[in-house]
Amino acid sequence: MSTDQPKGLLSTESYKGVRDFYPEDYYIHRWILETMRKACQSFGYTEYDASVLEPTELYTSKTSEEIINNQTYTFTDRGDRSVTLRPEMTPTVARMVAARWRDYPMPIRWFSIPNVFRYEKPQRGRLREHWQLNADMFGATGIEADVEMIALAAHVIKTFGATDSDFEIQINDRRLINATLEKIGATGEQHNALLFALDRKEKETSKDPAIASLMETYGTTIAPDEYLTQVMDALKRRGITNVRFSPYLVRGFAYYTGVVFEVFDTNPENRRSLFGGGRYDNLASAYTTQQIPAIGFGMGDVTIHDFLEIRNKLPAFKHPATVFIATTSPTVAAEAYNLATQFRDAGVYTSLNVTDKKIGDQIKYADKLGIPYVVVVGDDEVKNNTFVAKHLPTGNETPINRDDLTQFLQTP
Amino acid sequence: MSTDQPKGLLSTESYKGVRDFYPEDYYIHRWILETMRKACQSFGYTEYDASVLEPTELYTSKTSEEIINNQTYTFTDRGDRSVTLRPEMTPTVARMVAARWRDYPMPIRWFSIPNVFRYEKPQRGRLREHWQLNADMFGATGIEADVEMIALAAHVIKTFGATDSDFEIQINDRRLINATLEKIGATGEQHNALLFALDRKEKETSKDPAIASLMETYGTTIAPDEYLTQVMDALKRRGITNVRFSPYLVRGFAYYTGVVFEVFDTNPENRRSLFGGGRYDNLASAYTTQQIPAIGFGMGDVTIHDFLEIRNKLPAFKHPATVFIATTSPTVAAEAYNLATQFRDAGVYTSLNVTDKKIGDQIKYADKLGIPYVVVVGDDEVKNNTFVAKHLPTGNETPINRDDLTQFLQTP
Repeated sequence: MSTDQPKGLLSTESYKGVRDFYPEDYYIHRWILETMRKACQSFGYTEYDASVLEPTELYTSKTSEEIINNQTYTFTDRGDRSVTLRPEMTPTVARMVAARWRDYPMPIRWFSIPNVFRYEKPQRGRLREHWQLNADMFGATGIEADVEMIALAAHVIKTFGATDSDFEIQINDRRLINATLEKIGATGEQHNALLFALDRKEKETSKDPAIASLMETYGTTIAPDEYLTQVMDALKRRGITNVRFSPYLVRGFAYYTGVVFEVFDTNPENRRSLFGGGRYDNLASAYTTQQIPAIGFGMGDVTIHDFLEIRNKLPAFKHPATVFIATTSPTVAAEAYNLATQFRDAGVYTSLNVTDKKIGDQIKYADKLGIPYVVVVGDDEVKNNTFVAKHLPTGNETPINRDDLTQFLQTP
Repeated sequence: MSTDQPKGLLSTESYKGVRDFYPEDYYIHRWILETMRKACQSFGYTEYDASVLEPTELYTSKTSEEIINNQTYTFTDRGDRSVTLRPEMTPTVARMVAARWRDYPMPIRWFSIPNVFRYEKPQRGRLREHWQLNADMFGATGIEADVEMIALAAHVIKTFGATDSDFEIQINDRRLINATLEKIGATGEQHNALLFALDRKEKETSKDPAIASLMETYGTTIAPDEYLTQVMDALKRRGITNVRFSPYLVRGFAYYTGVVFEVFDTNPENRRSLFGGGRYDNLASAYTTQQIPAIGFGMGDVTIHDFLEIRNKLPAFKHPATVFIATTSPTVAAEAYNLATQFRDAGVYTSLNVTDKKIGDQIKYADKLGIPYVVVVGDDEVKNNTFVAKHLPTGNETPINRDDLTQFLQTP
């Protein structure tokens, strides 16, 4: 890491591959998280969370061995326990549901927006830490459950302002994939190699001629079965028309057991998967003898940020304060503070001068921060009980009696 | 850790000393965080954040050596970098301000609500991970700056519903403490031992007779100086009257340089420090040659949770959905979904049946979740375009035309 720090000073850089969120960055970050939250809540999903620290054994089952070996932050604590910074949320929610499914009526509809960690080479859209919306439904199977989860995925991206033409939902089914592989005569050993090759279909052709040949056969054989056709028809009847069967959609995670789907950016210069999910009916069985079917998806904050940034759909930073109170001298400081209290008690967020800067510099401070109004408090204003509310973007000045000032700022 | 898991199943317990937030827990957790957020924003503070992963060197300066050696989660990453899970936020914000202070008008007023980690024996109110509001002001000194930060601390706890009689603000000044120690003839070597002893005054008496004797002298010598008197008077003129000079208040962190304060629970059965802060004018100098004075405080979520729980001031869980749509048969599923879309588009959060449960069981599901309204969709309702909105807490049933149903649920 480069640093232009003078000798003897510590570096001000963050750890590699993670982000500092300065207020203008955090504003957008929070807007993304709040938009995800609102979209899930509007479908009646409730929020949960857990610690970023998990026992490593949560990830050492066969489903995610590769991830554990190569891509996680795993360390030993002072009590000789192996601890991992969660690389994904699904094992955590499966653990939590398995522990307490008796306490909740089924289906359980939950979401969370955790930060997750992967130890990989930082590159655009692939940081070592990102936030990921996880929406999941436990304890329901069938068309309506699958439809709701895919519809929620579409609802989330549309809540961000995307239109139907901005994205496409690709869909497949692990059961259909497996049945097709059997049908074309793939052996048990070829099964995983084929899944891996299918997953990369649009990136490369398999170097193994037997696998490459089977993939050709697979591509001409597979077609939506009755179930998948019903799911796609049901989505269309619900106004979700940008859905397409994708024979090569597999999704990497080994735990999927049914419908899988991915939301794709339709921008011709940037065609790529934005996020996706699928049905995983067996994951909870690592923790409980109760059969708990599940379907869900995960959506990363960096990917959606880039998707929205290209389309100019990110919001502009807005300072929380409506008004800045400037003061002409320390003698009016208590009066100014009490005016601020009057504003704050009425829900008008207020920033107050605490310096001995000149009035002009105080106003510049408010203007630079983007606070729209300034009220100057001086001896005359206090004596006359009348203040001027100056609107910085227009320069308009409105003289107002103290009693009416709060209401003016509440609905400027 | 005990577990009653059947043989062969993985434990469903979280890592030791951290919390799983099930929806009803998360609801309260989020309410605490949002209340902190609102209180800081109402003073015109803007939110920032950073990763929980920091380079270890951030904590290895003299100010926090003890913490690093004994109480942090520190590990080496695969690139041989030493990484620490942040034990507190102040070094992070000092680093961030030092990196980019030129981009922001002074004073910088920022807050954050990070999770922070300490490797200590878990006990009530002292978990290994907790969330901590950090509010800080950079680039301002003097009475008004100090007053604002102490006033903000009082404002935060009052925003939680605490009254003036629930808490007391204790205040002291490191400059006054140091001047007093010099005045009573403490040597340089005795200085740190005395600070340590003062910090523990109410817990034990020093075993070193010289130190114990100096502490007696200190107690009868120290009195608020002009500056501290002005600060306390200014607070009173601003309506903050529950302030008390506390000669033995030191606060552990070595980086404090001026005013220090702590908010105490006044409950006679639970007198203890809830949270606190102080002025630290030299911390940024580890990262920049620019002098950046600062004052701030930190407030933990567990402490405030316990403070509010004892006083019955925590909110009751509320499900996000206003209405649950029940369905009599799969034939009306699309109609029911489209009614849900009508509701959701109007901001009425809606949960929809996706199962083949009987109507009675569907209504029980909504009732258990705490969703207040149920609308049943069946063939008759669809044909007549009229639905019954059933209010579960009262049992009241209101038949309404489809077009008026949304408005009814918006303002039930």
